[in-house]
Amino acid sequence: MRIVVLAGGIGGARFLLGVRAYAREVGAEVTAVVNVGDDLLLHGLKVCPDLDSVMYTLGGGADPERGWGRVGETWTVKSELAAYGAEPTWFGLGDKDIATHLVRTTMLNAGYPLSQVTEALATRWQPGVRLLPATDDRLETHVVVSGRSEPAVASSADPVGADGGQRAIHFQEWWVRHRAEIPTHRFVFVGAETAKPAPGVLEAIGAADVVLVAPSNPVVSIAPILAVPGLREAVADGPAPVVGVSPIIGGAPVRGMADRCLAVLGVECSAAGVGGLYGGRSAGGLLDGWLVAPEDEGTVVPDVTVRSAPLRMTDEAATATMVRAALELV
Amino acid sequence: MRIVVLAGGIGGARFLLGVRAYAREVGAEVTAVVNVGDDLLLHGLKVCPDLDSVMYTLGGGADPERGWGRVGETWTVKSELAAYGAEPTWFGLGDKDIATHLVRTTMLNAGYPLSQVTEALATRWQPGVRLLPATDDRLETHVVVSGRSEPAVASSADPVGADGGQRAIHFQEWWVRHRAEIPTHRFVFVGAETAKPAPGVLEAIGAADVVLVAPSNPVVSIAPILAVPGLREAVADGPAPVVGVSPIIGGAPVRGMADRCLAVLGVECSAAGVGGLYGGRSAGGLLDGWLVAPEDEGTVVPDVTVRSAPLRMTDEAATATMVRAALELV
Repeated sequence: MRIVVLAGGIGGARFLLGVRAYAREVGAEVTAVVNVGDDLLLHGLKVCPDLDSVMYTLGGGADPERGWGRVGETWTVKSELAAYGAEPTWFGLGDKDIATHLVRTTMLNAGYPLSQVTEALATRWQPGVRLLPATDDRLETHVVVSGRSEPAVASSADPVGADGGQRAIHFQEWWVRHRAEIPTHRFVFVGAETAKPAPGVLEAIGAADVVLVAPSNPVVSIAPILAVPGLREAVADGPAPVVGVSPIIGGAPVRGMADRCLAVLGVECSAAGVGGLYGGRSAGGLLDGWLVAPEDEGTVVPDVTVRSAPLRMTDEAATATMVRAALELV
Repeated sequence: MRIVVLAGGIGGARFLLGVRAYAREVGAEVTAVVNVGDDLLLHGLKVCPDLDSVMYTLGGGADPERGWGRVGETWTVKSELAAYGAEPTWFGLGDKDIATHLVRTTMLNAGYPLSQVTEALATRWQPGVRLLPATDDRLETHVVVSGRSEPAVASSADPVGADGGQRAIHFQEWWVRHRAEIPTHRFVFVGAETAKPAPGVLEAIGAADVVLVAPSNPVVSIAPILAVPGLREAVADGPAPVVGVSPIIGGAPVRGMADRCLAVLGVECSAAGVGGLYGGRSAGGLLDGWLVAPEDEGTVVPDVTVRSAPLRMTDEAATATMVRAALELV
């Protein structure tokens, strides 16, 4: 049995723990297609937060309390960078984490594509699933917000900043620095038009027995994956049934700020709202099945089979049970 | 009064502590022209050991025990890099130190020359002397040693490796990894032919009231500075008297492995040997004066005024006294 999971963020990483546990039980192979829209260059280092969250979590190196980054992390480099006045200071790179970015950046600069770099990094972490970036190309989520560009950024070369009171900032600046608390107009996946699925992505989707959409943020974790030309079509038109797991329980995100992201799109923050955003496959959408929490029983998504099961990923066993419920849906 | 110091390594950094103390006393301005031959790229980071030794030492951030690197240093990134199997492992970058290299590398990649980057880094450390790299261009000390290239390096594109049993390795590999304990043929200053003195270097030498040659390693700290075309001439033909301070006391280097470097050149490891290597100015060499230790009283260098004074840089005051003795020589 072959399972492909579309995943991003901490929700995606924790979900994959359950997928891996399930897969080990039944002898299945798992391929995770991971969001790269959050990726950014910081102090010259290529940082891939979603790939790293998955790698650290599955490799047993993640901080279980904080949810992101490494367990036992230290922050010497960060405080030294601040002592130099090096910007930005709002995104904290831990010392352990920095080693990952140094290895990645060195390999990328040497010409290796991100997918090969990811494979190389994974030889250390042995995540037990195949990790693929959605694309090897630059695809960055930017956010169009109100307000003029800051002096350092404002220029005639900034078409959005020049456009009377709107400017585009990197997703991480919106998410981490502004906590998504500024007037926001829309999300833009920069580079999406020309991005190609990373080697192996379309093949994995084509050969899958089932595609799972992790309970990740639908707007900034899953949408950037689907924005890679050909990727959404491979899932929607592929042979495998597609089951999504709701990241919203009882009208609130389990974690993170999906509510703020959904509000930007004018989509209701509910299991029904996100299910409807993905859409039923027979109606040009993505889903055959949609797993919601017991709190959301009775959720209706047109043309989609909806079932309920406990969706709190409290531990690996609970998450594996949830994965089993998702797979039994189709 | 304007003092220019040619310096490299830990000896150079400690000497500059004394020069600064003396300069503060008499109200002099100090410009240090620092060796860049030791510089290297490690894990994608531009590392400038000599500039950093000077900056940390004068800025009060150096480790006084170890002599190099930062006080209170931690090694998280290094051990994580090793966990990834990232080569090389023989050169240890500390966490605090890495922040310096991240800022430097980011600025260099943004197009700033090393001299401007050095000035920017120095705004944090306030070294109290002007720090100038000898050149903004790539000038790397390589060492031609016996033995075939290692498999990873051997190729027909490696002219030295292919040349029946000789290969060139970076100075740091020779110094740090091999502790200078392998059969060695010569030193090569890669890039020296086309390097230009960094902005301000020739001007500082031309305007100097005195040029001091620090008790640094003459072969791998001072020689790469003088290898920048025009730099040796500016010193040798300039208006300022030139005084050198011997790095050899009683036939042994105070610190480091100058003895091994001198042996490669066939120069005796003595105050007279190094003085003769620099040479008397009137005979086409560099020096007007040569300060040696009391142990080496009686040292003769043709055409050079030789005096003796205590040369152990045990603390700043002792070093300032030594600087005064050097300046009184001319």
